[in-house]
Amino acid sequence: MGKKYVYFFGGGKAEGNAGMRSLLGGKGANLAEMTNIALPVPPGYSVSTEACKFYYEHGENYPPGLEEQIEKNLVKLEEVMEKKLGDTANPLLVSVRSGAPVSMPGMMDTVLNLGLNDQSLQGIINQTGNERFAYDSYRRFIMMFSDVVLSGAKDSPDYRPELGRHAFENIFAEVKKKLGVKEDTDVDADGLKEVMERSKEHFEKEYGKPFPGDPREQLRLSTNAVFESWNNKRARDFRRIKNIPDELGTAVNIQTMVFGNMGENSGTGVAFTRDPSTGQKKVYGNYLADAQGEDVVAGVRQAVPIEQMQQTVPEVYNQLLNVCQLLEKHYQDIQDIEFTIEKGKLYVLQCRSGKPTATGQAVVKIAVDMAREGLLAENIEEGRKKALLMVEPQHIDHMLHRQIDPRVEAGPVAKGVNASSGAATGAVVFSADDAEKRGEAGEKVILVRPETTPDDVHGFYGAQGILTQVGGATSHAALVARGMGKPCVAGCDQISIDLEAKQFTIDDIVVKEEDTISIDGSTGRVFLGEVPTIEAQMTPELQTLLTWADQVKRLGVWANADYPDDAVRAREFGAQGVGLCRTEHMFMETDRLPTVQKMILAKTEQQRRSALDKLLPLQREDFKGIFRAMDGLPVIIRLIDPPLHEFLPDHDELLVEVTELRLKAPGTTKLAEKERMLQAVKSMREQNPMLGLRGCRLGLVMPEIIQMQVRAILEAACEVEAEGIDVHPKIMIPLIGHVNELKAVRQQLKGTAKKVTEERGMNIDYKFGTMIEVPRAALTAGEIAKVADFFSFGTNDLTQTTFGISRDDAEAKFLMRYVENGILSANPFQTLDQKGVGTLVKMAVEAGRQSNSDLEVGICGEHGGDPASIEFCHRAGLDYVSCSPYRVPIARLAAAHAALKKQSIA
Amino acid sequence: MGKKYVYFFGGGKAEGNAGMRSLLGGKGANLAEMTNIALPVPPGYSVSTEACKFYYEHGENYPPGLEEQIEKNLVKLEEVMEKKLGDTANPLLVSVRSGAPVSMPGMMDTVLNLGLNDQSLQGIINQTGNERFAYDSYRRFIMMFSDVVLSGAKDSPDYRPELGRHAFENIFAEVKKKLGVKEDTDVDADGLKEVMERSKEHFEKEYGKPFPGDPREQLRLSTNAVFESWNNKRARDFRRIKNIPDELGTAVNIQTMVFGNMGENSGTGVAFTRDPSTGQKKVYGNYLADAQGEDVVAGVRQAVPIEQMQQTVPEVYNQLLNVCQLLEKHYQDIQDIEFTIEKGKLYVLQCRSGKPTATGQAVVKIAVDMAREGLLAENIEEGRKKALLMVEPQHIDHMLHRQIDPRVEAGPVAKGVNASSGAATGAVVFSADDAEKRGEAGEKVILVRPETTPDDVHGFYGAQGILTQVGGATSHAALVARGMGKPCVAGCDQISIDLEAKQFTIDDIVVKEEDTISIDGSTGRVFLGEVPTIEAQMTPELQTLLTWADQVKRLGVWANADYPDDAVRAREFGAQGVGLCRTEHMFMETDRLPTVQKMILAKTEQQRRSALDKLLPLQREDFKGIFRAMDGLPVIIRLIDPPLHEFLPDHDELLVEVTELRLKAPGTTKLAEKERMLQAVKSMREQNPMLGLRGCRLGLVMPEIIQMQVRAILEAACEVEAEGIDVHPKIMIPLIGHVNELKAVRQQLKGTAKKVTEERGMNIDYKFGTMIEVPRAALTAGEIAKVADFFSFGTNDLTQTTFGISRDDAEAKFLMRYVENGILSANPFQTLDQKGVGTLVKMAVEAGRQSNSDLEVGICGEHGGDPASIEFCHRAGLDYVSCSPYRVPIARLAAAHAALKKQSIA
Repeated sequence: MGKKYVYFFGGGKAEGNAGMRSLLGGKGANLAEMTNIALPVPPGYSVSTEACKFYYEHGENYPPGLEEQIEKNLVKLEEVMEKKLGDTANPLLVSVRSGAPVSMPGMMDTVLNLGLNDQSLQGIINQTGNERFAYDSYRRFIMMFSDVVLSGAKDSPDYRPELGRHAFENIFAEVKKKLGVKEDTDVDADGLKEVMERSKEHFEKEYGKPFPGDPREQLRLSTNAVFESWNNKRARDFRRIKNIPDELGTAVNIQTMVFGNMGENSGTGVAFTRDPSTGQKKVYGNYLADAQGEDVVAGVRQAVPIEQMQQTVPEVYNQLLNVCQLLEKHYQDIQDIEFTIEKGKLYVLQCRSGKPTATGQAVVKIAVDMAREGLLAENIEEGRKKALLMVEPQHIDHMLHRQIDPRVEAGPVAKGVNASSGAATGAVVFSADDAEKRGEAGEKVILVRPETTPDDVHGFYGAQGILTQVGGATSHAALVARGMGKPCVAGCDQISIDLEAKQFTIDDIVVKEEDTISIDGSTGRVFLGEVPTIEAQMTPELQTLLTWADQVKRLGVWANADYPDDAVRAREFGAQGVGLCRTEHMFMETDRLPTVQKMILAKTEQQRRSALDKLLPLQREDFKGIFRAMDGLPVIIRLIDPPLHEFLPDHDELLVEVTELRLKAPGTTKLAEKERMLQAVKSMREQNPMLGLRGCRLGLVMPEIIQMQVRAILEAACEVEAEGIDVHPKIMIPLIGHVNELKAVRQQLKGTAKKVTEERGMNIDYKFGTMIEVPRAALTAGEIAKVADFFSFGTNDLTQTTFGISRDDAEAKFLMRYVENGILSANPFQTLDQKGVGTLVKMAVEAGRQSNSDLEVGICGEHGGDPASIEFCHRAGLDYVSCSPYRVPIARLAAAHAALKKQSIA
Repeated sequence: MGKKYVYFFGGGKAEGNAGMRSLLGGKGANLAEMTNIALPVPPGYSVSTEACKFYYEHGENYPPGLEEQIEKNLVKLEEVMEKKLGDTANPLLVSVRSGAPVSMPGMMDTVLNLGLNDQSLQGIINQTGNERFAYDSYRRFIMMFSDVVLSGAKDSPDYRPELGRHAFENIFAEVKKKLGVKEDTDVDADGLKEVMERSKEHFEKEYGKPFPGDPREQLRLSTNAVFESWNNKRARDFRRIKNIPDELGTAVNIQTMVFGNMGENSGTGVAFTRDPSTGQKKVYGNYLADAQGEDVVAGVRQAVPIEQMQQTVPEVYNQLLNVCQLLEKHYQDIQDIEFTIEKGKLYVLQCRSGKPTATGQAVVKIAVDMAREGLLAENIEEGRKKALLMVEPQHIDHMLHRQIDPRVEAGPVAKGVNASSGAATGAVVFSADDAEKRGEAGEKVILVRPETTPDDVHGFYGAQGILTQVGGATSHAALVARGMGKPCVAGCDQISIDLEAKQFTIDDIVVKEEDTISIDGSTGRVFLGEVPTIEAQMTPELQTLLTWADQVKRLGVWANADYPDDAVRAREFGAQGVGLCRTEHMFMETDRLPTVQKMILAKTEQQRRSALDKLLPLQREDFKGIFRAMDGLPVIIRLIDPPLHEFLPDHDELLVEVTELRLKAPGTTKLAEKERMLQAVKSMREQNPMLGLRGCRLGLVMPEIIQMQVRAILEAACEVEAEGIDVHPKIMIPLIGHVNELKAVRQQLKGTAKKVTEERGMNIDYKFGTMIEVPRAALTAGEIAKVADFFSFGTNDLTQTTFGISRDDAEAKFLMRYVENGILSANPFQTLDQKGVGTLVKMAVEAGRQSNSDLEVGICGEHGGDPASIEFCHRAGLDYVSCSPYRVPIARLAAAHAALKKQSIA
């Protein structure tokens, strides 16, 4: 028979299993697996992805032997079910569904109730005694088959709308009109029969041939249609966005239909094995008695909480609980199942991981609970490790953003791509200008756009959140929103925007400018009106999980903190040190800025010293607060880094003022003053300030400032040490490119430090180190390490200089486009570029450690909070990562993952 | 006796030789060498540098045995000379001179006529019968000994001016006054005897002890003084500037005095073995009969051309010619000698290479002549190689700058450091503001400053040349001037500037503002008035030498040429291709700029295309001119690189205009127009344009421009090929950081190129390659080489990104200071930073060649014309260097040197 293309499941065992995902698709592999573990799965068979691949590689022809294999399995299915396709007495009906190796929800087509024809219709009526159901099933099948199998792809020029769903819906509407009823449910069996008959006539008229009555022909055409659907535009677009290879192909699953609408001891429902909102350990779901799945979707009747099955079908309910327990034990994860009860018999139609739809909070609780329950492993340590691997960093990210309250009753009206975490509520606006203007005025708005471009970026600042119709997780909107930390739902194609009319619609719902909506960027959901949200919080389970993480991770997790408040929060989140305290923010504070400006503009050393003398006690107090918060832990303080003109008034504003005053108030003192300031600002202006007079270069040209800073650090250290605080300041000299720079600055500052400790008669454990943030520092790290106690990779600047890209300029102008077009696989300012920047990091770590075995090495760029980058840091042998306080919990988990993954590779 | 510290020379042989420079110093080694080759050198001995080192390492004590060795050699000297120190009958007089391993002209002290006391004075009178000479020698000795040996270092607080030269000069002046004479030569023997006696009295009064009469004590004290002079401030500063290690130490040379003032058959002179101005093969120098060296310096009588010796002392003259020939043969180089004739006997007092004082033209001619004469080697090839190594790149540099006419009679009035090549004439100005203002007005001015700072840089632009009093070859003035290609004489400490009075003085000469001076930055000379200069020129000897260079070099030498004229010149200078043709300069031309602006500001693709259609024929003509000039050779054309706002009006000027118009002419069309333009400029402005939307990024965002350029290149190639020109265009895509950028751009452009060649029905040999100018390109060169036919290192930008330094901002603001303070040993934009940038270059060459064995690799940054960088490029295995046309000859020689040096290392 040659190669095997068809895999049977049913009768207690299956030819496939969960490990055959790439061959049978996700759905097929799970149906096989469930069959093997003796769950009540309606039998059927899967046509493998290889058949689909062959189909495309050979001009849409079946591989040799496939038809025979299908026929053989069909016969087997009929035997197992003791039913026959198209039989008048005991007809077999099947569903035909696609199933790709990678989840592509809703992207491809499904045909239900296949096997219905005039003969089997009678069989169904005989079996169920329910004419209305039978006619309804038949007319739905005609509509679905015509729409899915014969009308052509909706996005192709060949699409035939007269064979599409809408044409048949019209027939139904006409009949309802004729009968004078409004609701589908008010149409009786005769009415449905008329709909069915008129549908068949309509089909024959438009298609030129009668509706195909041969179930085997129906099956062949449907299988082809599933193959074709793999290549429809929607599916192709989806794959392109998600980076899914086109070669995977889809499987086709043919499965016996079961019916939940056969009376009160029938029904249908969905269930999670645990509560996907809270993680609570109880089966959670909805149930609708005497109904099919599509009734639930159509909202014909309201589904009830699943617990009510206890009253109506207690045995089945217990069976369901058992199934859930079995599945959890088998998959070691929360499961999301669809089930149908046909005349008291439970069937599981589908199971999949419930994690994608669970909240972060739930995933964390479930992982911790399962470990404690011993469900993951007998050994406690092993169980904890598995629990850690069950939780993704993004789950913690979601928990640490403002979230839609999971107890909220209101359902979402649409769902898009969860592009940037967090919940936001606001009035709808349709232009970036409006968003900017109203945001600046303090209003809360949500910016809604078909898609965004660099011209819209200014609107992001003013908006609470962003909602787009087109584009996915790597679209411009998604990238920019994530960069700014704004919630974003992207690619929500259920909404249809009319920019002229300033409104968007979701089916019948019209949302106008000014209407309030809420979006949940963590899950991609869109709600009408204001929806209650809850603050980010550390749950007890998260605390526990992170304690477990700390036990397996090797990397230290430190935090970037510029103020005492930040340091306190970082410590609460588990930071083991401060990896970056930027001192210039302290200079920027409104009450200090005038003194800082006096210092910068000083004409004499005396003027400069007098301004610095005023700043010294302020800086000292800042440092004392941070030292107190980090009692016992290291604190890395970076000396002043930005170019000095950042502390002066804006050049362009001054230029306008001076030009105006020259015309309106010549000769005035005010003009003279402004002119002086403009002159000073001009003299400090640089063409490329990123690459200009900043960092250690400032310290070499104008040493008084960093001398003041080191004095403030050491004085603060002495004073808190006297309070009994255990203090470990590490002084970081930025932007070193040549070892001689570090030698010169360090020499100078060592003198200052020694002087202060001698004045105070104290012994302080202080160190001097440097940022590695230009390529030359990394390339000559061996030399630099000889005069540095520590390295901290400033990967933001290192990425800028390694790529030759200014982040401020590039993200809007071309970097987003690079990521969208696949020139770059990720924004290198969010995820460390391992090939380029990473090579420099590895070279520097190696050379640095070789010449100074005590060298401590960490990272303090934004990448320190990015899971993929953290894994790289682990592999590169860094001692710690430092990130923003809110990302510390994420980094702790990611560091644990890195350690566990390296174990599993080793 | 232990270690040998003292080396004798005399009596026909010496213990040392020319190879013992580090032990005996340059002077001592040469005296030994000349003695060994039987030249008439006054005998003596050298105390080695190791004795000096010991002296400093052991608290200024002599090593054991040194005193005994000195005494033994002194006795030997007395035996050889048949004279005795301090003898009444036949006294021996000696000179004591320092002599370091590295030339430190004038940095340390000398004592002459040592051995004179009241007894030996009689011996001299008896021997010479010349009382006047004897008394004069004695009074000079007292003055010199007191000044050099006993007054203390002039820059130390212990200096005793009453023992210094000036105190004794005063005594002489008093006696002259008493005698009523003006000139030294008018003082007779009795007068000089009085000066001598009063000098002794003065000494005893001030020093508290009589003048030391014991010659051995004189000798001991003088030797110590030479040791001490190694560490005086002047010598230390000189070493710091020239990067000479402090540990070398100096030797002390004790040599028998000979006297040229013993009648008409005595005399003194200096001679070059060839003409140091023209290189002509004839002994060139000056001679003064019956005189000592100091008489020549004092200008007592005018020296005569050396040829006149033929008439007066023909035998000695022939002897001198023989000595010169012998020396040239021995040293294989032009020599500069000092000689004295004592009673018809020729003595050579010193010989050294004449190259440092020869013109570039002379050095080149001498090298070529000597090779042809067979003086350098018997084998012709070997001789040519030696000739190549005799010439330094700077000699060619000097020849290729405007030079002071070597036939000029006028002597320089001062000499400083030759800081930046070329000659310049102009009116003296003393402030940068004046230089800028008057330079802009078209006047020729020389900026004269005590030293320069970043605040003076604007004045450099306006000045023809720069003259400073303080600082050396790495001073701010030197670095900036070299960077701008302006002639500069730095550290000319013979001039004394009075900024208040707006004048400077050289001894008695006063030069006021507005006075004309000339400077020669190639030799460091300063002249009064306008001095004739000659144009840069390629002499026949240079042509020959460069042909020889081409025979040994491995590196190709290409040129950067933006216009056909440049290409023609480059080819004349021997360029083997165009390594960089920047296309944006073509856009900047006044008549094209409006069209370029229209293209940039186009609102629709149609508008853009229409502007590009106008530019296409212009670019095509540019390329045709270059292709014609480079018939048969490769031409690398770089696609548009700078950010587009560089082509638009200046932002600040527009802002001022708009602000003014808003007040003065609200509502006018002109305002609206200017506002539109301002808006456009604002939208293209970048914070760090160096790292912004430029290079290949432009090509990806706005592909029409580079498509037009590639069309222009290929159309031009087709058209000149049809003329019979052999054309090899190489299209260079700038600023690649990721292989995917190159893939995308190349793909797009290949299409355009194919289309053009198909339209024209021609076959053109074109290639696509990239600049490697950001670190990431170097780090991922292996990937990039797979889609590139060639690499060209853009080391200007690569240096900027590797260091994280913007050249425009940094050179004035801190980079000069870095070089002055020794943080960097050189300006990395002039000489390639081998440790940082060089590491990236080597990595990229290696990885690139590994993945593409046909890859052609060159460099087109400014470093391509810098000799040290060229040597690096040779070692790194590059195929060629490309530099500005004027530097092509220099690069050819440097490339030959690199090949020869590598041979000699191997």
